[in-house]
This record gives sequence, C-alpha cells and structure tokens, in this order.
Amino acid sequence: MNEVITTLLNHRSIRLFKDEQLSEEQIKTIVACAQATSTSSFIQAYSIIGIKDKEKKRKLAEIAGNQEYVAENGHLFIFCADLRRHELIGEMEGKDVQASIESTEKFMVTLIDAALAAQNAAIAAESMGLGICYIGGIRNNLEAVKELLKTPDRVIPLFGMTVGYPVKINDQKPRLPFEHVYHEEEYEQDKELYLRQIQDYNQVISQYYDQRTNGKRKDTWSAQMANMLEKQTRMYMKEYVQKNKMDLR
Amino acid sequence: MNEVITTLLNHRSIRLFKDEQLSEEQIKTIVACAQATSTSSFIQAYSIIGIKDKEKKRKLAEIAGNQEYVAENGHLFIFCADLRRHELIGEMEGKDVQASIESTEKFMVTLIDAALAAQNAAIAAESMGLGICYIGGIRNNLEAVKELLKTPDRVIPLFGMTVGYPVKINDQKPRLPFEHVYHEEEYEQDKELYLRQIQDYNQVISQYYDQRTNGKRKDTWSAQMANMLEKQTRMYMKEYVQKNKMDLR
Repeated sequence: MNEVITTLLNHRSIRLFKDEQLSEEQIKTIVACAQATSTSSFIQAYSIIGIKDKEKKRKLAEIAGNQEYVAENGHLFIFCADLRRHELIGEMEGKDVQASIESTEKFMVTLIDAALAAQNAAIAAESMGLGICYIGGIRNNLEAVKELLKTPDRVIPLFGMTVGYPVKINDQKPRLPFEHVYHEEEYEQDKELYLRQIQDYNQVISQYYDQRTNGKRKDTWSAQMANMLEKQTRMYMKEYVQKNKMDLR
Repeated sequence: MNEVITTLLNHRSIRLFKDEQLSEEQIKTIVACAQATSTSSFIQAYSIIGIKDKEKKRKLAEIAGNQEYVAENGHLFIFCADLRRHELIGEMEGKDVQASIESTEKFMVTLIDAALAAQNAAIAAESMGLGICYIGGIRNNLEAVKELLKTPDRVIPLFGMTVGYPVKINDQKPRLPFEHVYHEEEYEQDKELYLRQIQDYNQVISQYYDQRTNGKRKDTWSAQMANMLEKQTRMYMKEYVQKNKMDLR
C-alpha cells in the first residue's frame, strides 16, 4: 500500500481544530491541487471562496446549525458551482450560451466539477497533516450565504470545507459492504440479496455505535437514514437553484 | 512537496491504455478508497458499476461518441447517483421518504457524493501508476446506458472512468488563474478585473495550443467555451432525471 492510498483510507472528518491558521502557501497548494482535477470538457465551472474573517465564519457557523468547528478552524473554504464566467464569455464572444448554461446537464456538470476539485483539496490538506470536514450545513439557508458572500446569479455555494490541525481524531465509520456499492456488469437485479446486504450492514453499524457509546446507542443505518429522510429538509432548494438561473431546462 | 501532492498535481487524462486488465485486488483497493471519502450525513448515495465485458464496453464507447479508450482500457467504472437503496429503506422502516429523495437538495447530494467518491478512486488509481479518464460522454444517451446497465429508477449513471496502464502521457493544460478561481472573503465584485483575468488566461491557453500544434491551433479558452456552450447538448437531461424520479421538487 503506497502513501497516497494510506492517506485516502485514513480519512475521517475532523470537528475540533487547533487555533492555528493555514499559511498562504498551504492555501495556495490546496487550491492548486483542487484545480489540477479533471474538469468536464475543460469547463472549470466552479469557484472557491476562502474565509478568514471571524465574524463571517461565525455567521456561516450559525447558518450551518451552530457547528462550532465552522467558526473555529485553520481555514474555511466554500465551494461554489459557477457558470457566471461562462455567461460573461457568451457576451464577450457574441454567442448565445443561455439555454446551455441554464440546462440540467450543465447544472450537473458544475456540481460534479466542484466536488471533484473539493475532494482533491481535501486529500491535499490531509496529506499535510491537516484535517477536514465538509459542511453541507451551509445549504440550510443559501439566501443568507449568498448575501454574506455576495455570490452573483449563476453561482451556487454548494458546501464548505473546514481545514485545520486536528485536536481530536474520530473513529472511522464502517461503509456499506463493497458488494452492495460495487456492481459487476449491471446494477444488482436480485432485490432480496440487495436488501440482505443492507440488513448485514445494519448489524455492523449497530455494533459500531454500541461499542462507541458503551451501549447507549444502537441504531441501525437504515433506521438512521429513514429518520433523516422522513424529515423534509431544504425543500426550498429547487426554487433557489432556479432563481439563480441553473437547472431551468 | 509530499508524494500525495505530487500525485495530485501530476494528473492528466489518459486516453490510450495498454491491453492489460486491472486485477481484482486493484479494483477492490480503488473502490475501498472511493468508499473512504466523506459522504453527506452518512447517506452513501452512489453506486459504482464495473464493466469488463468487451461488447458492453464497445456499446458504451459508441454512446460516448466513439471514443476508443472507453472500449480499450484496463477497467471501466460507471459512477451512479443512487437513492434506490434509500427508497427501499423507507419501505423497510415504514417511513415516508419520498418527498425527500425526490428533492433537488437530495439530487445535489447524490451528485456531490458520487463525485467525491470518484475523485478518490481516480487518485488511488493514479497512485498505483495507472491512468484515468472521466467519461462524461455516457450522458449523450442515458436511456441507452440505463438499458445496458439495467439501472432502476432513482439511479442515474453520471459518468464513466476508464482506468489502465498509460501508453501515451499527455501534456497538462494550464488551469484558470488562481486569483480567478479563488476569491477572498466574498465573490469577486470587480467585473473588469474578473474579465481581465479571463483575457490573460486566453493568452496562456492560446500559446499552449500554438506550441502544442506547431501553430495549427491558437484558439482561446473563451472562444472554445463559447463555441461549446452555444451548442445545446444533452437538453433531454431534465426530462430524463425527472423520469428517474430525482430533482422533482
């Protein structure tokens, strides 16, 4: 196993950081690694906003559900889907690009592009001995984030990433069984087998929580997921995305 | 610079592979690395389909616009957004999760989840001396891909990834300027500066093509993008996604 694979397999989200800020050089290296990722047809349809300002971090932490580590960390990156520059390029080149950049296809491209870049950033940071945590919580209120970060139309903040020197290293949560996630030649057609894999995994997760909490918590993955998904959260998203002129057609 | 960062910065897409198949161990390691990535609220909303069958690869290559390397490689992975297991979990646990899994928010989550996993897979492969290329071209005809891979509703094939031992190593295309992609504290408000950065980058890209093609090609990035985006491609995507019961509300 090489050093890269060791880094990848060793990942865990870090939610408690030392009070030490990233250097400019560290930030530049992380962004350079993000930019080195593949990008669909060279479109480069994302932007990254770096936040150092304490007050701004505090507000973003509030939006994200008062998660302390969103305010207290070594640096906070916000990854955005971005077709703004492509809109301007259309004007610049005298080409009508509107239908294209408002399509569901291009919305998907921006999300995938931004996420690929973010994961490279995460790996770069972790390789430097830093820890990271993705912050989907900013999507609790993208109107507020937009106001705070002054993102124009055709730019959608997708998630944050806190980076910093770890204080507390968490356990790794076991993932779904390999066979359940990886299908050979075609999607698994045997529903009974598919459900049994989830049941088996439920045992694994239940034991994991049991051991970790000294018996206080034993919930299964399916119970956890069903409870989460029963709640209808962030249902304003369709309207928000379309108001910002993506995913319209 | 550590070995991980060297690997990340050294990325280039590989489009010509040796006729040597990945071992089962290599596939397992790549998928394990993909699964080690962060996942939004532990949702694990993606699946990976591995294709070895020559005939199937050939058909996927045709769909992707007759790209030879989609058929000829060491392995082909197809990354899918997947909320199928969450639908079944809703039934299993007697909870109504339908509105949630049909939301634009969860559609975004699946795309981000799948892309984060894919990028870890890419890095793992590259660290083993393998090369990769993302294949967005499968989105040319997702109906045909769905039929070929038998993906059920609530599963959307997003992109492929060819992996294998590289024959030809391409140059790296220079990326957008750091300052254009990375914004401090808020999104860049100075439109003139923003446009000037694109113009500067146009020079860089034009020179890159000029040198690479001995003067045969000199197009700028903005011209390339405007020409691409003027064409309305994959405009069936919204209908396809919604027919597969995602991004509905």
